[in-house]
Amino acid sequence: MSEVKTLKGKPLDRAELDRVLRASLFYTQVGCIGLAEGHCSSFDIYGGVSGFYDYGPPGCSLQAKIVDLWRKHFVLEENMLEVDCPMITPHEVLQTSGHVDRFCDWMVKDPKNGDILRADHLVEQVLEARLNGNRLARAEAIVEKDDPKKKKKKGGALEAVKLDDAVVQEYEEVLAKIDNYDGPELGQLMEKYDIRNPASGERTEAPVQFNLMFQIPNIGPSSQLKGFLRPETAQGQFLNFAKLLEFNNGRMPFASALIGKSFRNEIAPRAGLLRVREFLMAEIEHFVDPQGGKKHARFEEVRHIKLNLLNREVQLSGKTTVTPTPIGEAVKNGIVDNETLGYFLARIQLFAIKIGCDPNKMRFRQHMASEMAHYASDCWDLELQTSYGWIECVGCADRSAYDLTVHMKKTGQPLVAKERLPEPREVEYWAAEPDKKKVGMKFRKDAQPILAALDNLADDLKEKMSLELKSNGKATIDVPGVGDGNVELTSDLLTIEKKKRVEHVRTYIPNVIEPSFGIGRILYALCEHVYWCRENDEARVVLSFPPIVAPTPVAVLPLSGNAEFKPLVARLSKALREQEVYNVVDDSSVSIGRRYSRQDQVGTPYAITVDFESVQKGTFTLRERDSTLQVRAPEAEIVDAVVNMVKGRETWEDVMKRLPKFEGQDLENTE
Amino acid sequence: MSEVKTLKGKPLDRAELDRVLRASLFYTQVGCIGLAEGHCSSFDIYGGVSGFYDYGPPGCSLQAKIVDLWRKHFVLEENMLEVDCPMITPHEVLQTSGHVDRFCDWMVKDPKNGDILRADHLVEQVLEARLNGNRLARAEAIVEKDDPKKKKKKGGALEAVKLDDAVVQEYEEVLAKIDNYDGPELGQLMEKYDIRNPASGERTEAPVQFNLMFQIPNIGPSSQLKGFLRPETAQGQFLNFAKLLEFNNGRMPFASALIGKSFRNEIAPRAGLLRVREFLMAEIEHFVDPQGGKKHARFEEVRHIKLNLLNREVQLSGKTTVTPTPIGEAVKNGIVDNETLGYFLARIQLFAIKIGCDPNKMRFRQHMASEMAHYASDCWDLELQTSYGWIECVGCADRSAYDLTVHMKKTGQPLVAKERLPEPREVEYWAAEPDKKKVGMKFRKDAQPILAALDNLADDLKEKMSLELKSNGKATIDVPGVGDGNVELTSDLLTIEKKKRVEHVRTYIPNVIEPSFGIGRILYALCEHVYWCRENDEARVVLSFPPIVAPTPVAVLPLSGNAEFKPLVARLSKALREQEVYNVVDDSSVSIGRRYSRQDQVGTPYAITVDFESVQKGTFTLRERDSTLQVRAPEAEIVDAVVNMVKGRETWEDVMKRLPKFEGQDLENTE
Repeated sequence: MSEVKTLKGKPLDRAELDRVLRASLFYTQVGCIGLAEGHCSSFDIYGGVSGFYDYGPPGCSLQAKIVDLWRKHFVLEENMLEVDCPMITPHEVLQTSGHVDRFCDWMVKDPKNGDILRADHLVEQVLEARLNGNRLARAEAIVEKDDPKKKKKKGGALEAVKLDDAVVQEYEEVLAKIDNYDGPELGQLMEKYDIRNPASGERTEAPVQFNLMFQIPNIGPSSQLKGFLRPETAQGQFLNFAKLLEFNNGRMPFASALIGKSFRNEIAPRAGLLRVREFLMAEIEHFVDPQGGKKHARFEEVRHIKLNLLNREVQLSGKTTVTPTPIGEAVKNGIVDNETLGYFLARIQLFAIKIGCDPNKMRFRQHMASEMAHYASDCWDLELQTSYGWIECVGCADRSAYDLTVHMKKTGQPLVAKERLPEPREVEYWAAEPDKKKVGMKFRKDAQPILAALDNLADDLKEKMSLELKSNGKATIDVPGVGDGNVELTSDLLTIEKKKRVEHVRTYIPNVIEPSFGIGRILYALCEHVYWCRENDEARVVLSFPPIVAPTPVAVLPLSGNAEFKPLVARLSKALREQEVYNVVDDSSVSIGRRYSRQDQVGTPYAITVDFESVQKGTFTLRERDSTLQVRAPEAEIVDAVVNMVKGRETWEDVMKRLPKFEGQDLENTE
Repeated sequence: MSEVKTLKGKPLDRAELDRVLRASLFYTQVGCIGLAEGHCSSFDIYGGVSGFYDYGPPGCSLQAKIVDLWRKHFVLEENMLEVDCPMITPHEVLQTSGHVDRFCDWMVKDPKNGDILRADHLVEQVLEARLNGNRLARAEAIVEKDDPKKKKKKGGALEAVKLDDAVVQEYEEVLAKIDNYDGPELGQLMEKYDIRNPASGERTEAPVQFNLMFQIPNIGPSSQLKGFLRPETAQGQFLNFAKLLEFNNGRMPFASALIGKSFRNEIAPRAGLLRVREFLMAEIEHFVDPQGGKKHARFEEVRHIKLNLLNREVQLSGKTTVTPTPIGEAVKNGIVDNETLGYFLARIQLFAIKIGCDPNKMRFRQHMASEMAHYASDCWDLELQTSYGWIECVGCADRSAYDLTVHMKKTGQPLVAKERLPEPREVEYWAAEPDKKKVGMKFRKDAQPILAALDNLADDLKEKMSLELKSNGKATIDVPGVGDGNVELTSDLLTIEKKKRVEHVRTYIPNVIEPSFGIGRILYALCEHVYWCRENDEARVVLSFPPIVAPTPVAVLPLSGNAEFKPLVARLSKALREQEVYNVVDDSSVSIGRRYSRQDQVGTPYAITVDFESVQKGTFTLRERDSTLQVRAPEAEIVDAVVNMVKGRETWEDVMKRLPKFEGQDLENTE
């Protein structure tokens, strides 16, 4: 993997960024008094629990702003139907959705020291270490020839072992397909390549499945009702489908949306904020007619937008090269399946750019067939490049009719949409005609559920029953809750025949296109994308958040503790707040330069300084973070400029044109 | 309890309001296709799980707006430090906070049918039924005298049994203090008054404690680390106290805030949205120096505000009368303990009024001594009057130094603030002076934790150890993790003496004032407060939400499906959206009157109608919900007026003054 660069083209120093983010309380640090450093997670003073993080004030504000923009960009812009559903979800719902059986990772146990590891991560880690060792060995061979003394200096913990070219190629192929193996396959790889737990040198036991949902052992005082914490917000939206369709006056297509926390009981969380056990998601379920090619009414608006697409075929050939392709072309060529999927990919990219992600560090990668979740028929991820590699930040899956179908089957409720046909059409169907009176007399109180079950029976099952009735004179139907669940009906009670009817309305189960955003991952990737250091001083870190997402849009700084500054500071702060521009006052006793630097570090785009000229002439300086340029003007104009820039009505360039540049004393480097 | 009235003085019909809220999808209804009515909760199509609700689009939008205003009113207005912490919380944290042992309700089991009931609710229900039966019996006595035929018509399920005056008084006293009894006391009441499960007529078993936290049996793949879903957001804030204080440059007082879900595994949820198992909270932890009377810098701003206060003494006397009292006076008279508590009570009231709650249906009730949570030293609730009675919607507790103290004791981390003293002072203290070398030689690897434990020992324990050392030549100290946790130290290893030192800084554990908002309860109470019906038509329901919280601020309605209206509708909708005023277009084929009515029912304050004059002359009508009055003006002026009203810059009265009133055809009652 090539080294990740900052905005200014310098190598990105992840450890330094991490230190800065923790020091500014974007997320919390180890050590109760906030001075110690190291691994950071929630519940620090209790030793910390991996996979859990607290956001401090800047992280919390950044998160709230990303969510707010998301709501405007998607929900409000497209009149999506936002819902809020509980996180605790009954066992039965997630059984039906397939999560109880299939939402699992493969884990292996070290029989000696009890370590539990994720099987794919273990294979990945060991093979990558061997490839690095090979690179080192080959480099050393050159170095040794060059200068034998240099050998000792490299090496470190890595074992420099040269591998054959064929082995290198084999390892690289395994790594390219690492998300593609199931448990037994991972077990075979571990056998074949003698992969051992690096911590103990031991072989592990065979991979076993571990369900990633957190269990809730009892809802209410008895333990009859069990549940899970939801692994995604989608199920709550599917269960509300019929009500939302009615709310939308029966019109298709439409989308629901939900912003909320989900939970995954990761086997071994790693990579900081990128793999956590509790995380904020924003998910859209766009319900669309599967017929007619899944067109989208607003596709024209995005047709020209170029995306970096990495499709399945390119990946299978072992490559990762992308070519920027207009989404219109990609849909036409069938690289992206349909307009609706394409529309959302383009809108996702627009959102990522709006919040400040670097367009050069974005790509859309199509999932490999065996890598997809159990419900998906196609899936493209927005991946953002970070120092941890390319990270999936938004998944955009075509879940087809999977979810609505399974819930409909399980509950017997019609999760369908209807379309008035342009002209009536004749259709064949299987008609089940029970003799209601006889059924009633024979089954008494059970008659009602039996008749309802017959009503809801799928066409193929009716056909099957019809054959049974004809050959055996009786047939069996599933009626949960009646007897042992199987009810036998004889041909005097029931006839099933093929009939014809004229339909004016077509009934169908909608398909679902699901853009699903991991807000925490986006937040972290964004921090890497906007991070750089001043040319002249590596220690002066800047986070170039766009004004609309910056945790604090503006800081007010009095030059010193002079009492004359206080009323001016208070007035400015209030004037901004009244226009809903949140601001902080930093009146600590350190120099202006140090305070500018502190604001740069949390990404505050603007700073207003109150000095003696403010007292005498009523003018204030306004500094822009990235350029460090300043203007000076009277209070009203300064407030106006800041409000306009924060609300996106003006840019700094606009303001520079109309307000006088200030080139007084240079306070940037004051100490 | 007197009957609750709507804004227009009519009796509030809760069933009708509930029907309207469910039909509009404020929260979800039973029945998959959205037509059936009845008890409503989440996971409807799976039969529903009590205590869980989904919010549909209007409820979700209302919730988001209440939260947004809360953030502005409290967090941004006062520069509170907002944090976001995980909901899954390790066992040890909640053990320390006291929740594992004491966050319980008393439940009773019916030995015959297995019903599990909340003990206090059972007592309350049975005694209230008897009092109602008594009222009925006395009324019937009058009715019978009046007209013997009327007797049959009343009655219903209620048993009309007359009680002695003394019994009535006894029951009423018990009910007034119902939150005040512990389990054994409830058991005695049930014995004394022969209280039985109404469903079975059986006596129940004795009350037992049930912990209200949802358990998480394993965090990660092994079951070594257990946890709970948080019952409040406060603990995450306390654990971050030291870091937040540092973030605040060490300055006191300051407040943290957290908006997020919490969980309570209620024994038997009831009363709709008012008692649920998963709910949104917004909590503030205001950290303040316990010395100096807990003054508040901004108390002057609220001193004059009148609150309806219902203090402990009045309640103990069995009364519920309140007198509006300026908060300044209440603090001066000691009814409210201190300025900080008083400041927040006033700010809470301002918030409730801002979002549209009825000032005549608000009171602040002080908790009775035994009713308070285990951590509280004083507590006032904002109660809102609803058809369910007076409901606690915001708790404002003085948690004293309880939480920081227990976490500090448990972890050994200094959760303290420091104050530079105006002049140095001499203080006495107990000095523990171990002979480090000898301790090291004797205890080897355990020496470090032993010395750390000595360092963190509280003064009173040092004094105790000093006496032991003097009398026995040895003393014991708790060192968790070393041997059995008790370490004996002899007087050759340790001396403890009273000493004096000069202090320049005072170190103290801050107290906490905690305003804690139940957003779902506020949301429901607000719906009751803004609900009324048009004078001329009971079926025409109006929800008079203020424009800032209304789920949809404005609707755009084309007079008919005429194609000429479409571009105008699209342009208007876009113009509003560009100014961040969310709007819906209702172009369904029903009459304008019906569509106005539908918007009234979800509380949309403004509707713009597009008609033929719009096409010909470019003017549009703008209708206000509560008055149904209209103005007509060109597009730009209409958009301007709506944006101003929604953003709170203008009122409808202002707009009526400057735009021409429209008194064309009356579309209100078109069908």
